[in-house]
Amino acid sequence: MRMYDLIMKKRSGEALTEEEIRYMIDEYVAGNIPDYQMSAFLMAVYFKGMTEEEIFIMTDAVARSGDMVDLSGIEGIKVDKHSTGGVGDKTTLIIAPIVASYGVKVAKMSGRGLGHTGGTIDKMESIPGIKLSLSQEEFFAVVNKAGLSVIGQSGNLTPADKKLYALRDVTATVDSIPLIAVSIMSKKLAAGSDCILLDVKTGSGAFMKSLDDSIALAECMVKIGESSGRRTAALITDMDIPLGNNIGNALEVIEAVETLKGQGPEDLTEICIRLAGNMLYLAGKGELPECIQMAKDAIESGKALEKLISMVEAQGGDASVIKDTDKFEKAQWSYEVKAPQSGYITRINSEACGIASMLLGAGRETKDSEIDYSAGIILRNKVGKYVEKGEVLATLYANNQELFKAAEDKLIEAFTIEDNTPKERPLILARIEKDKIVKYV
Amino acid sequence: MRMYDLIMKKRSGEALTEEEIRYMIDEYVAGNIPDYQMSAFLMAVYFKGMTEEEIFIMTDAVARSGDMVDLSGIEGIKVDKHSTGGVGDKTTLIIAPIVASYGVKVAKMSGRGLGHTGGTIDKMESIPGIKLSLSQEEFFAVVNKAGLSVIGQSGNLTPADKKLYALRDVTATVDSIPLIAVSIMSKKLAAGSDCILLDVKTGSGAFMKSLDDSIALAECMVKIGESSGRRTAALITDMDIPLGNNIGNALEVIEAVETLKGQGPEDLTEICIRLAGNMLYLAGKGELPECIQMAKDAIESGKALEKLISMVEAQGGDASVIKDTDKFEKAQWSYEVKAPQSGYITRINSEACGIASMLLGAGRETKDSEIDYSAGIILRNKVGKYVEKGEVLATLYANNQELFKAAEDKLIEAFTIEDNTPKERPLILARIEKDKIVKYV
Repeated sequence: MRMYDLIMKKRSGEALTEEEIRYMIDEYVAGNIPDYQMSAFLMAVYFKGMTEEEIFIMTDAVARSGDMVDLSGIEGIKVDKHSTGGVGDKTTLIIAPIVASYGVKVAKMSGRGLGHTGGTIDKMESIPGIKLSLSQEEFFAVVNKAGLSVIGQSGNLTPADKKLYALRDVTATVDSIPLIAVSIMSKKLAAGSDCILLDVKTGSGAFMKSLDDSIALAECMVKIGESSGRRTAALITDMDIPLGNNIGNALEVIEAVETLKGQGPEDLTEICIRLAGNMLYLAGKGELPECIQMAKDAIESGKALEKLISMVEAQGGDASVIKDTDKFEKAQWSYEVKAPQSGYITRINSEACGIASMLLGAGRETKDSEIDYSAGIILRNKVGKYVEKGEVLATLYANNQELFKAAEDKLIEAFTIEDNTPKERPLILARIEKDKIVKYV
Repeated sequence: MRMYDLIMKKRSGEALTEEEIRYMIDEYVAGNIPDYQMSAFLMAVYFKGMTEEEIFIMTDAVARSGDMVDLSGIEGIKVDKHSTGGVGDKTTLIIAPIVASYGVKVAKMSGRGLGHTGGTIDKMESIPGIKLSLSQEEFFAVVNKAGLSVIGQSGNLTPADKKLYALRDVTATVDSIPLIAVSIMSKKLAAGSDCILLDVKTGSGAFMKSLDDSIALAECMVKIGESSGRRTAALITDMDIPLGNNIGNALEVIEAVETLKGQGPEDLTEICIRLAGNMLYLAGKGELPECIQMAKDAIESGKALEKLISMVEAQGGDASVIKDTDKFEKAQWSYEVKAPQSGYITRINSEACGIASMLLGAGRETKDSEIDYSAGIILRNKVGKYVEKGEVLATLYANNQELFKAAEDKLIEAFTIEDNTPKERPLILARIEKDKIVKYV
């Protein structure tokens, strides 16, 4: 078998066989197929697409290129959640405790942030003493005891995806629906959960700019999951709104805790209830409306918050900061960003918010940057609000006053202030499960 | 400027600017753009094409990536010819003397063969004593004196094309009309002649399988040439017929000499007269029918043969072998390949003939293979002839009897023998010059 022939086949719009796809992935990871052939193949896929059968096989081949996590040592149904990116996305810290409070297990390995996106693991690291690097035995023990655990990624998961993604990133072949679907779902299959809920972001800042493309991607991923025996569903959510008000590591944990206490911002609370409800539904806890009600109840009863505390304690963290978030270490300086003009806030660009937060020290500019856990932003006014010129838009937090100027400039860029009220748009635009698509717009 | 953005632009079907194209070619040759980005770009070009403007600029940039040959030291009009490949193509050795006999200069640098194709330089090397590696001064002196010279390629011509071609060859991006046009025409522009005649092969063994594609490629190349101030025309010729009867180095020189003596095979004579006539036409020697008649006359009068002899002598070769081709060194052994069945010869696959000749020692399997100049094949029956089972199809020549078996098997594969007479097809299928396309079929 020769990679040349596989490129030619794909270029002609033909489907590769199972043998061909597995050969290609295995030999690419082994270093026997050069990047210049793979990038030509990926560009051909961009133009010619892949059949469902090809997508299923490639996802499986990429998943099996490294370790396949075996969660059978954890009792009960394990449910996983994936978001296609986003700023201020602290949903994992809210929804995992909610579903765990009903006995549905969450055994999640999560990543670190780079650039304008924050990583769940970075956020959790702001909790004093918490251990995020556990052996498999310790990890399973935490999940079996507390019902949930979120730790940093370890082992050799989907090396083919890492290599392919790095190549796509520099060859303009990222935004291909089959390639995105293979990338995301291979990691989810390797991570071992029984059920997978996908949060597919849509909008100008996302991979998928249009709702139709987002739905197509979600459909494709749901089919992959179901074809591999995992119960899978997807929600299409709005990328262009930062979720909640807080951006930055400790600030986001604080907001997550407030949400679990029933005092969170409306948008964040709403989306977390819907996500958690869908996860409970996938785990077989009832019909969807019922499961959404259960998610609400878990917040009201305080059971979800208890689960978060149990997890923090089981992972050796100081849960007193969760019980009283005032105990989180604070940034030394704060600074108020004021509206440069009067009008309605019609848009807040979440990517620009993420960059502003990074400039304050809350994110990594490069892989080796140190993170300042207390730095970040609290948005004081959000989309739809009318602000007077000079009114506070946001508060910046940092341990170095010199960082405020650049962050302020970037944050002001993020706000669009106009004379007319913006069009209202629901937070969740569509929902996809096996053989079923529901649009909310 | 970032290569990533150029890939994205081409992927979206947009045209690159002059600055972008020159940046891309220069940085690629300098090693600052990696192969994996260039191959993704080339695949995007395969799908999205290039505008005429882009093609002109890229051809110029590739031509200027290395030395630009300056032929101004040679008096008169210099005319060049390029063939897009072919087996048994000894036309250069016939047409260059024809046009030189009318004072039109041919200063040609030519390549060596690899695999099933033979190189003009390899063929010429069978002439005892001939020098094929000349300094520029010697080269110009030969052309000024004899009217023509064919030597091996030297210097650093179109390094960008070498690098791009090697990449396209392994990434299934060879058969793109704009990329082929850029590759061929950049070399022709760098080679410095005033007029360029292109022999574009068509048929199952060629880059361009269909007549329409071949015409499109020819049109594109003619436009490039004319836009660079070179008089350019193209003939579309049949790839699937080996030209003449002889394949192999000395055997092809012998056949070329016979043709110049008016005793050559009909197909080869006919095509050489048409090619030479077109070159004379491009050089401004008259209207096309007149120029074709001039080409015939140069053979009949013996003036073209005299020119070949002058060139051989001016390059230090022993012209006695041209005057009496029996003096060429002969292979020690010959072997007759017989028809395995009775019927009409409907096709002779020229690629398979080339491989058979290589197997006899006449060609290079790898770059470092030694060539046996006396080895090769003489076809005894060609397309359209009725043969009885056991009748001789071809004679093989080699200096090692053990080579005959494999070559025979390959050559028998090359022949298609059927019950019905084949459809007649003209040798030249179309002619393209500026703003003018004439089809002969």
